[in-house]
Amino acid sequence: MKLRILAAAVSALSLAPIYSAAQELIQPIKPPMQINLGMVELGKKLYFDPRLSKSGFISCNSCHNLSMGGTDNIPTSIGDKWQQGPINAPTVLNSSLNVAQFWDGRAADLKAQAGGPIANPGEMGFTHTLAIGVLASIPAYVREFKTVFGTDKIDIDQVTLAIAEFEKTLVTPNSRFDQWLLGKSDALSADELAGYKLFKESGCVACHNGPAVGGASFQKMGVVAPYKSTGGAEGRSAVTGKEVDRFNFKVPTLRNVEMTYPYFHDGAVNTLPEAVDIMGKLQLGKTFTPTENGKVVAFLKTLTGDQPSFALPILPPSSDKTPRPTPFAK
Amino acid sequence: MKLRILAAAVSALSLAPIYSAAQELIQPIKPPMQINLGMVELGKKLYFDPRLSKSGFISCNSCHNLSMGGTDNIPTSIGDKWQQGPINAPTVLNSSLNVAQFWDGRAADLKAQAGGPIANPGEMGFTHTLAIGVLASIPAYVREFKTVFGTDKIDIDQVTLAIAEFEKTLVTPNSRFDQWLLGKSDALSADELAGYKLFKESGCVACHNGPAVGGASFQKMGVVAPYKSTGGAEGRSAVTGKEVDRFNFKVPTLRNVEMTYPYFHDGAVNTLPEAVDIMGKLQLGKTFTPTENGKVVAFLKTLTGDQPSFALPILPPSSDKTPRPTPFAK
Repeated sequence: MKLRILAAAVSALSLAPIYSAAQELIQPIKPPMQINLGMVELGKKLYFDPRLSKSGFISCNSCHNLSMGGTDNIPTSIGDKWQQGPINAPTVLNSSLNVAQFWDGRAADLKAQAGGPIANPGEMGFTHTLAIGVLASIPAYVREFKTVFGTDKIDIDQVTLAIAEFEKTLVTPNSRFDQWLLGKSDALSADELAGYKLFKESGCVACHNGPAVGGASFQKMGVVAPYKSTGGAEGRSAVTGKEVDRFNFKVPTLRNVEMTYPYFHDGAVNTLPEAVDIMGKLQLGKTFTPTENGKVVAFLKTLTGDQPSFALPILPPSSDKTPRPTPFAK
Repeated sequence: MKLRILAAAVSALSLAPIYSAAQELIQPIKPPMQINLGMVELGKKLYFDPRLSKSGFISCNSCHNLSMGGTDNIPTSIGDKWQQGPINAPTVLNSSLNVAQFWDGRAADLKAQAGGPIANPGEMGFTHTLAIGVLASIPAYVREFKTVFGTDKIDIDQVTLAIAEFEKTLVTPNSRFDQWLLGKSDALSADELAGYKLFKESGCVACHNGPAVGGASFQKMGVVAPYKSTGGAEGRSAVTGKEVDRFNFKVPTLRNVEMTYPYFHDGAVNTLPEAVDIMGKLQLGKTFTPTENGKVVAFLKTLTGDQPSFALPILPPSSDKTPRPTPFAK
């Protein structure tokens, strides 16, 4: 809540630099608290399990790949039968810090998000009922759900709750920038510090603030000049139905931004120098010189934190009764 | 070499039970020796890196998924643009023990195999030249190749050598059956032991022997009666050009067979009871009773070993110069 108030206070239209040496507008990432470990381990398996898709080929990790910054590093994702997705897959890293999920914020939280792709015909192409049928046919899953939730009956709420609990652990603390925030004054080079100063003074921090350096508000893509996209996404208005919200998108986190290319909701931009240039011009009416651009990019690369480290989960095998995936069914 | 001689001696046509209490025809899996650790770590990244595919979406692990017994658990694999593969993806687990790679043995070893899917238009859909171009544009990869191979220039031999070195580590020791072989007499139940006795006395062990319980020879699919498949794979004759090798396939390993469904080169059979029934009838002219079938299956499930355990690798990000994947290009 505090974050949202802060974001509102420094909204995109208030472009004056707001910072002080004592109180930065970006805070260090904190490790997750109050984590249910049993649920995390179950959710980790589900996150990697392609049996939650019709094809048996697509898992959460296919498009939010934890080897690659929690994204798929392609402009728009590949769904069931190689369908082209309508929008760039946002990173799952630090997504627990977002004000809402999806670019248009149509899911209130991680749990609400997790059920979406499973049943989206263009993504995993399955149904919740069929996914539960698969899980309920696998004895080791039935035992694990019983251990975690205390019941014999698996349901979609348990599935999405467990996936969300795993996702809460996917934070990336200890970036060089966070080390600097926490007092290690030599953690950043002179250029990186100069880039941070430019980031604040130019107004980037007005939207990209808080521990996730973004994710806390919806803002118009194309404030000073329109953003031209071949993608059809209309943004927040798809959720609110209000014309004023057209092309409003959730401000993406800049944590690990070096790893989460390509950029913007349509994934149209491949490199950070280009993304910084476009953001400056369209959102702030500012043209960064090549030197300034290089410094801002240098700063952005200090936001790469420790990536989640865990053993690749081993999935319990299907039983003789498990319904089989149908990757090539018409 | 020893394995091959052994396999020849007990070929499929020699169906008499060959075993002794002192000298079983199945040996325990041994941990890999003489492993180059730097090469393993590099190969592990490459194994998980979808940038070796045209789409940026398919990695070695997509079809040889180490969460799922080193397979994709679908009848035939999904390739670039959702093309349907011609044959079931064999498990990568313990594949270093195979006499040759692929069902038809067209690759002599793991290194020769690793280059195949990258450049196969129906699989990863890329070219070796383009894949090397991607890797050479990523500074962290360039440094890691230099550390491991001592040169500034990345080539496909290094890539496939590193992937093969990682794959050599993917063995699964310590199954309950191996514990029994190594002297833990209570590691198997009475039914499992009875199943092993049936496995030997019925002649299964004639082909499924050695440490991999298979993988050591090519045998005709359909010895006693023909195997009917809708798949078009012709088997070993595709390599040798000899009619006598038609429908000869590499005997698959039975290690972790509980996890490597569906079964046979066309992936047409979903369950172990059905696979055992078909093998008995078509290869041995033997109809197992339901009780016998259950015991053989119980034995087969004791072949599941410790799955490879390692942290999910974090891939170095692309640079501004890295050519981008083209998942939806015509």
